[in-house]
Amino acid sequence: MTATQAPRPYSEAEADARAARDATIPAAYGLPKSCFPLPKNVTTVLESSGILSADELAIVNLDATALASVIAARKVSAVAAAKAYVKAAAVAQQVTNCVVELFEDEALERAAWLDAELARTGKTVGPFHGVPVSIKDHINVKGHDSPSTFIGLVGKMVAEEDSHAVKILRDAGAVFFVKTTNPQTLMAIETDSYLGVTTSPWNTDTTSGGSSGGEGAILAFKASALGVGSDIGGSVRAPAASTGIYSFKPGFHRLPNAGIVVPVGPEGYDGILSTQGPMARSVRDLELYMRVMGAAQPWLSEPVVESKPWREVAAPTKLRIGVLEDDGVIRPVAPVRRALAAAVEKLKAAGHEIVPYKQYDYAENWDVLRKLYFIDNGDSVHAQLARGNEPIKPLIKWALRAVGTEPISGIDYFKLVGRRDAFRYNLAQYWRAQNVDVVLSPVLPGPAALHGNSKYWGYTCYWNFANYPAGVFPTGLHVDPALDAEDGSYAPRNEDEAHVYATYDAAKQANAPLGLQVIGYAGSEEETLAAMKVISEVVQA
Amino acid sequence: MTATQAPRPYSEAEADARAARDATIPAAYGLPKSCFPLPKNVTTVLESSGILSADELAIVNLDATALASVIAARKVSAVAAAKAYVKAAAVAQQVTNCVVELFEDEALERAAWLDAELARTGKTVGPFHGVPVSIKDHINVKGHDSPSTFIGLVGKMVAEEDSHAVKILRDAGAVFFVKTTNPQTLMAIETDSYLGVTTSPWNTDTTSGGSSGGEGAILAFKASALGVGSDIGGSVRAPAASTGIYSFKPGFHRLPNAGIVVPVGPEGYDGILSTQGPMARSVRDLELYMRVMGAAQPWLSEPVVESKPWREVAAPTKLRIGVLEDDGVIRPVAPVRRALAAAVEKLKAAGHEIVPYKQYDYAENWDVLRKLYFIDNGDSVHAQLARGNEPIKPLIKWALRAVGTEPISGIDYFKLVGRRDAFRYNLAQYWRAQNVDVVLSPVLPGPAALHGNSKYWGYTCYWNFANYPAGVFPTGLHVDPALDAEDGSYAPRNEDEAHVYATYDAAKQANAPLGLQVIGYAGSEEETLAAMKVISEVVQA
Repeated sequence: MTATQAPRPYSEAEADARAARDATIPAAYGLPKSCFPLPKNVTTVLESSGILSADELAIVNLDATALASVIAARKVSAVAAAKAYVKAAAVAQQVTNCVVELFEDEALERAAWLDAELARTGKTVGPFHGVPVSIKDHINVKGHDSPSTFIGLVGKMVAEEDSHAVKILRDAGAVFFVKTTNPQTLMAIETDSYLGVTTSPWNTDTTSGGSSGGEGAILAFKASALGVGSDIGGSVRAPAASTGIYSFKPGFHRLPNAGIVVPVGPEGYDGILSTQGPMARSVRDLELYMRVMGAAQPWLSEPVVESKPWREVAAPTKLRIGVLEDDGVIRPVAPVRRALAAAVEKLKAAGHEIVPYKQYDYAENWDVLRKLYFIDNGDSVHAQLARGNEPIKPLIKWALRAVGTEPISGIDYFKLVGRRDAFRYNLAQYWRAQNVDVVLSPVLPGPAALHGNSKYWGYTCYWNFANYPAGVFPTGLHVDPALDAEDGSYAPRNEDEAHVYATYDAAKQANAPLGLQVIGYAGSEEETLAAMKVISEVVQA
Repeated sequence: MTATQAPRPYSEAEADARAARDATIPAAYGLPKSCFPLPKNVTTVLESSGILSADELAIVNLDATALASVIAARKVSAVAAAKAYVKAAAVAQQVTNCVVELFEDEALERAAWLDAELARTGKTVGPFHGVPVSIKDHINVKGHDSPSTFIGLVGKMVAEEDSHAVKILRDAGAVFFVKTTNPQTLMAIETDSYLGVTTSPWNTDTTSGGSSGGEGAILAFKASALGVGSDIGGSVRAPAASTGIYSFKPGFHRLPNAGIVVPVGPEGYDGILSTQGPMARSVRDLELYMRVMGAAQPWLSEPVVESKPWREVAAPTKLRIGVLEDDGVIRPVAPVRRALAAAVEKLKAAGHEIVPYKQYDYAENWDVLRKLYFIDNGDSVHAQLARGNEPIKPLIKWALRAVGTEPISGIDYFKLVGRRDAFRYNLAQYWRAQNVDVVLSPVLPGPAALHGNSKYWGYTCYWNFANYPAGVFPTGLHVDPALDAEDGSYAPRNEDEAHVYATYDAAKQANAPLGLQVIGYAGSEEETLAAMKVISEVVQA
């Protein structure tokens, strides 16, 4: 006798999944009662909790480059680094809800092996020898589940092999210790799934961004040395801006993407593609990541990757920077305008040339992109949800609001691709005519939103559609209610802009960090990061 | 009163188009009666015709690199070179039917300007200063028609701008003087259109190959110094093999393709793409072409082009060469086997390592490729034909034999793309496991076919589907009826193979040149050409 088993009730499955996740957090690293009630700004909790020793706090204060350096010099052991970061991640989970799975034993075992190798050979295994690296859930790590935001996939997606990126990092000596949260479907710039809402550590009423929101929270909390996220519309950039870290989205085929679970969208679809990208605590860490990926020659086994070694480029001395103040759809709210204006002043003072930059044909970009995003009209989203009897989250329902119901024909699909390619061609002519090295732009129209309000990705997804590299850096500024209130006099030009202004609240979003985006021409990943390094140093000085 | 005008009768339009083309051939360069009756092998007619002076014959005996060198040294003027090649092309047309339009006046005017520039500045305009370059019809040259094989487009496709490749060549000093023939629809490896059949100069009963068959004929006749063709399944390689010249098909996005007319297939379709590529009279000319294209940084205005400068690589001293003797579908006929065996012996003697190479999963490659080739079920082919009341050519009818009638859905299209990408991924693993530098392979299962018999593209289109770079060089050997007869003992394994063996005739195909193909790993255009240079020198020695 056979019977089709109905999915179990969602609430039960959700409770089990959360309990299973919580069980991966060692009880020994539970926050002491003295930490409660938690402040909105939890960035100080790591230090105040007493869970990490002074040595461990010193370790987690280093960026990946510095940590790799002290481990290589045998001043710090890989085991000590792993232990410090496992503890920090356990705390991060308790205050920001950023963890899908923490795996201390595996990390310590790996770190011990690395220490032994260094002792035995006198050499590091690679540039990331002993560096703890956090991985966004849908990127496969051998032996770990990748439910990729759907409760119906929990326990069913244990990876038999590392994804290509993870394999390269492992070969370079990285220590994996945690997988991090992303929003249901991955198609949102806030992080809310069956595991609940992930918050920014700077203000837990605000989102950590998405879809690589777990990475944003854990890195901002200094609970990971380096992270791997992915981006199809802003998913490494929105979290970086929302949490005050660094991230980089290269072009589609610059980095290896094999072994990354794409839970929605038809297989073989390449109208608009996601790419993995580094999330980090310095520009030099982003560069090191790109250098390590290139040195591994990923194109030899993943032929879609451009066979293009990472080029070392000299730091630019004088940049011509196009500044995008307003994309014509949503003028950024006060603190973003303040951060951009302050950056411009400093860059001018440092001798860089600043010119205005207007977004080229936003309407065409967005019209084609939105049609390409859910090419199957959301069928695969609904199928994954149905698998686990999972209710759709409000922001996903919103994202799917405009999809059609009829399957697209091949010919109509090619028309979209033709428009996409024509846009890219025309944008290249426009960009050339502006004669800019890079564009400096907002990342989001506001600081990290109060949970549930992030609807506009236009400042980031524009560049996925264009396929231009784009990075995010923190300006060092944060929302200050005394400086950043909106007086209500601005008349929004459209519904989306009205939503941003209506939901912005300087007081409630206090302390949210303010990041900016640096965009370079298609294919110039090296020049883009080199420019971002110069720009961020000037802006943060 | 309005009325829909019926297309004029095809036969009238064809006669007019041929007459218009003939009118572009200056009467002064008509073959003298002494040349008739023409031999089957017309390669000697250029010299015996008396139309070119001894100096002009010396000019057309140079490859592009050598010609550029003597022009730069002011030993030969650009005008003299243009005049020599215009004359040669006029003769080539009369014996091989390879010309769509010859434009002497424009070429001479341009050459005179180049001579004046060199005299004025003491510098060449660029590496191709004064080099006459022939262009396949569907590649736009400013001011010239690109009917692109359809009579219904004749006179309607005058280019307002140069295609990107032509612009780069023009900026590098090239002189354009002729556009060359291609087969109806461009989807055949013989050249037969409203302008008639183009023949190999080595044996006019045999095809010059296709679809860049005009280029093959004109270059083999020494009536062009350098040519630009295009290839989606073998279209620069089949002509090179059929006429005894050199050609190179890079990966899809290595060269600029903007401004090339794609007369069939839906706009925006990118399931399988054509790329332009050089056709030449030496490997060093192919390399110079690639170098000039890279130096122009075509990605700055055509962003789909890989932003990847041409790398100068050292000539390999010892190669590990995989040899593909039989792709499992059609074993090559005797002369091709002889040419390959002779090459292998010479390469072994020169110290290179030779290992057998088997084609990876040919069946999957071909099954997906044939579905991708005519994704619109031939609708655009039939629409273009209908526009000119043009009858379909037999080989095109044959190519379209298996297409369906229902428009493909987006989802089914993505499945094909998914299979394509999986194949490419799997092939990369296989290639790596063979650990070969390059593969040496037949180009076609036989020598240039007797007109109307070329049906199998499997040795070439396999590598378009794979997206691996592949070049063709002449071995120096030709079909010799005394050596190359088939005794009829071979039992064909399938219908396609039976067709090849049934239509092969060593006597009738006598003198047809024998070329071979060198294939390199995806993205390694530089290494592939460097290897082909070494291999061709050994094989031709």
